[in-house]
Amino acid sequence: MNTFAALLTSEQIVRIHEASLEILENVGLLVRNAQAKEYLAKHGCRVDAEIIKFPRQVVEAARAAFPPTFTFYGREPKYDRTLPRDRPVIVTGSSAPNMLDPVTGKERRAYADDIARIARLIHELPGYDVFSISTLAEDAPLDRFTVTRLYPALKNCLKPIRCSALNPTDAAQALQLGALVAGSDAAYRERPFITHHYCPIVSPLTFDFDSTEMLIYFAEQGLPSFGSVVPNGGMSAPLTLLGTLTQGNAEFLAWTTLIQMIRPGTPIIYSSLPTIADMRRGAYSPGAIESGMLVMGMAQMAHFYNVPNGGYIGLTNSKINDAQSGYESGMSNVGALLAGADMFNLGGLLDALMCFDFAKAVIDDDIARMLKRMQRGFEFGEENFAFDDIAATGPGGMFIDRPRTYALMKETMYLSDIADRDARNRWQKQGALDTQARALKRVREILMSDQPSFISPDVDARIRAAFADLPAGECVPPKEWK
Amino acid sequence: MNTFAALLTSEQIVRIHEASLEILENVGLLVRNAQAKEYLAKHGCRVDAEIIKFPRQVVEAARAAFPPTFTFYGREPKYDRTLPRDRPVIVTGSSAPNMLDPVTGKERRAYADDIARIARLIHELPGYDVFSISTLAEDAPLDRFTVTRLYPALKNCLKPIRCSALNPTDAAQALQLGALVAGSDAAYRERPFITHHYCPIVSPLTFDFDSTEMLIYFAEQGLPSFGSVVPNGGMSAPLTLLGTLTQGNAEFLAWTTLIQMIRPGTPIIYSSLPTIADMRRGAYSPGAIESGMLVMGMAQMAHFYNVPNGGYIGLTNSKINDAQSGYESGMSNVGALLAGADMFNLGGLLDALMCFDFAKAVIDDDIARMLKRMQRGFEFGEENFAFDDIAATGPGGMFIDRPRTYALMKETMYLSDIADRDARNRWQKQGALDTQARALKRVREILMSDQPSFISPDVDARIRAAFADLPAGECVPPKEWK
Repeated sequence: MNTFAALLTSEQIVRIHEASLEILENVGLLVRNAQAKEYLAKHGCRVDAEIIKFPRQVVEAARAAFPPTFTFYGREPKYDRTLPRDRPVIVTGSSAPNMLDPVTGKERRAYADDIARIARLIHELPGYDVFSISTLAEDAPLDRFTVTRLYPALKNCLKPIRCSALNPTDAAQALQLGALVAGSDAAYRERPFITHHYCPIVSPLTFDFDSTEMLIYFAEQGLPSFGSVVPNGGMSAPLTLLGTLTQGNAEFLAWTTLIQMIRPGTPIIYSSLPTIADMRRGAYSPGAIESGMLVMGMAQMAHFYNVPNGGYIGLTNSKINDAQSGYESGMSNVGALLAGADMFNLGGLLDALMCFDFAKAVIDDDIARMLKRMQRGFEFGEENFAFDDIAATGPGGMFIDRPRTYALMKETMYLSDIADRDARNRWQKQGALDTQARALKRVREILMSDQPSFISPDVDARIRAAFADLPAGECVPPKEWK
Repeated sequence: MNTFAALLTSEQIVRIHEASLEILENVGLLVRNAQAKEYLAKHGCRVDAEIIKFPRQVVEAARAAFPPTFTFYGREPKYDRTLPRDRPVIVTGSSAPNMLDPVTGKERRAYADDIARIARLIHELPGYDVFSISTLAEDAPLDRFTVTRLYPALKNCLKPIRCSALNPTDAAQALQLGALVAGSDAAYRERPFITHHYCPIVSPLTFDFDSTEMLIYFAEQGLPSFGSVVPNGGMSAPLTLLGTLTQGNAEFLAWTTLIQMIRPGTPIIYSSLPTIADMRRGAYSPGAIESGMLVMGMAQMAHFYNVPNGGYIGLTNSKINDAQSGYESGMSNVGALLAGADMFNLGGLLDALMCFDFAKAVIDDDIARMLKRMQRGFEFGEENFAFDDIAATGPGGMFIDRPRTYALMKETMYLSDIADRDARNRWQKQGALDTQARALKRVREILMSDQPSFISPDVDARIRAAFADLPAGECVPPKEWK
């Protein structure tokens, strides 16, 4: 990629930054969390009961501390991904309340063994870089919310894991589990393979109590975490793209200003899930093209701040893997890639983030790999012109038997196993399967193969000793699949 | 749009131009058409039997005559579309050999009354700007190939029509029909609402006899026509993106050089359908992301030449309207839009251009309107920041009852009627329809409504007198739809 697409001019970007500072200085944010208020007041914010106003110089001072990169650590260094260098970094969508059962196709709650299967699928699908735990676990014992999700994920996926803890007790368990898997607390902190994520701001302009507490907790610990801003035009932000973008930008500056006060230089991501509501019925519409445009605008703002960016992108409002699900997922993702987004939470969700689906995760892997092919761009060197082939073939000839054609067949083109390219009659003979059916077939292939745990038996014994009541979280195929 | 995405640097663009000149000068093109040979020789090309070599100064002289715009004329001025000003100009995909029957869903040949129905659908769908006749007409009488397709199109669609004639006799009939509809030959030539299109070059580097004859014919007449280049990496071009792009660029320069020799300043479009073959089975793969990338590269070349550009883009290899069809159609189209393509032949085709489908045309209209929303970008003015709303709402408030929210509800967001945004239970209660089913419902609504002919009875009588054997080409709904 040599130049990013820009929906905004440089002058407009500066004006949006200025407008955000005006909002922070004049309207301010509602902050109920005492720790946050204390940090903000100590570093020059004006406190007016629960409203905190951010003078421009306070925000600019924090901004000067923004580091330009963010690293997701895997269990092994080969899985590490650093933004923006390794863009596009592909992450699953996360924390769906429901999932589609892979056998019945019906929506239901998810359990620890579902997370195990999803983790394994994401580990195996080459398009994904980070596994943000896709669902909740209905069978989590009391006060075991986060470890119940993390344990099956760590057992089945070596890629970086992303999740959210509820409170300091819950977070401490997550750190304890990380240390058990890594061998020691020190080993875990050297390679912190769990990144925490929160939505610290409830739009408009309100710090959420728990999420803010958690971001402060991890910033104090020096462990990787970041927040997403989620303005929803028409509901929690103005019903203009510019108003939603600007308010969201102010909210980004608010949480990052707080974090930089705690530990200057803490790595951050300008992460977002901006939407415009369909006001005909107030529908939440992350599948709409305006969401893609807002992420594109935020990518431009992030470049202005020289911080990595990305977020939830290419989501769909569709309930199934139909054409709408395909074009909503595809269009916004390409927009964000070409506008310079670095991180894409794009995988596996249907129905406006409400529902995880195994087949969708496979389809999104195909989209992810197309994005990566586009990012690779044109291989450009004199040999790539293939002058010799053009001259030797000559007008009217064929290139199929040139040695270069054979040599490059796996390199020039991304060879999808999910997209069908057969002739219609061959496709019909093979069962006339749609993308959904082909993707589910791939899910079965992966889940029916041997799935050794990525946690050794002795480490597993120590984990079971520390958390005796954890569900097994084994990756076993559904019993109906034989 | 303020800046286009660029896969190529300016230096690379210049190198590709130079490389194309080298190919034209050293390898040359195979030209069998005597008229073309004569024009090319007269203007300085070197003739070596059937191989014609283009000295650099000949190509550069032609290039200096390229005009920067191209206009598609509608029957009424409000339907006119000028490239690049009115970008993205959305055109149907054309000349599919088969179609899916809207009643049975089975593939079959198409007839004049199918073209009538398709024309009416495209007339009614707001995303489309130009109707490039989507299918052939199996019931065309002998020697009535083009008028049999044009007549139902002109009866049912006032938007600009695009088609291809076979030979001078066939083309003369098209002109005669145009004159009858316009009232006179002079009136038709003032507003030539039929644009002709050809693929004048068979890759690699060979002028097709008939298509070349037709392009010469219309250039001599001063009537709108243009060509597309269609290199297929691995088969008719090298299996590298750069080689396929460069050979295609040389082929573009070849046909436009010829046309500018005939009538300097003839409007052209840098139009293409570049592909890379999936060499696992040699499959033609216009749905692959590499096709989108090639169109993006060609858009950059066209900007360098300061000519309008576009082509067949967002095609799919899928046989049905499933997820693959959605993401293949959506991704390449956004890529091309953001790279600066002006014209998008995106509508209505499945199965790698083999098959027209009514539902796909409706789905592509949705995609087209999303592209147009993206092109519109961020409305940027002080009022769009909505500072007053943000201040009045304050932290923790709601924007739903702000007057601006009501005023802008139809303007800020593209409100799709095809994409479903309901909650899952509501969607289920309404029949759990997929995109295909919703799109087909829209087709029925349009085709079951009154469809008065856009050709008056007296003009129609004159047409029937001139072409007595033409099929009626009436837009009547399938008899099974009652």
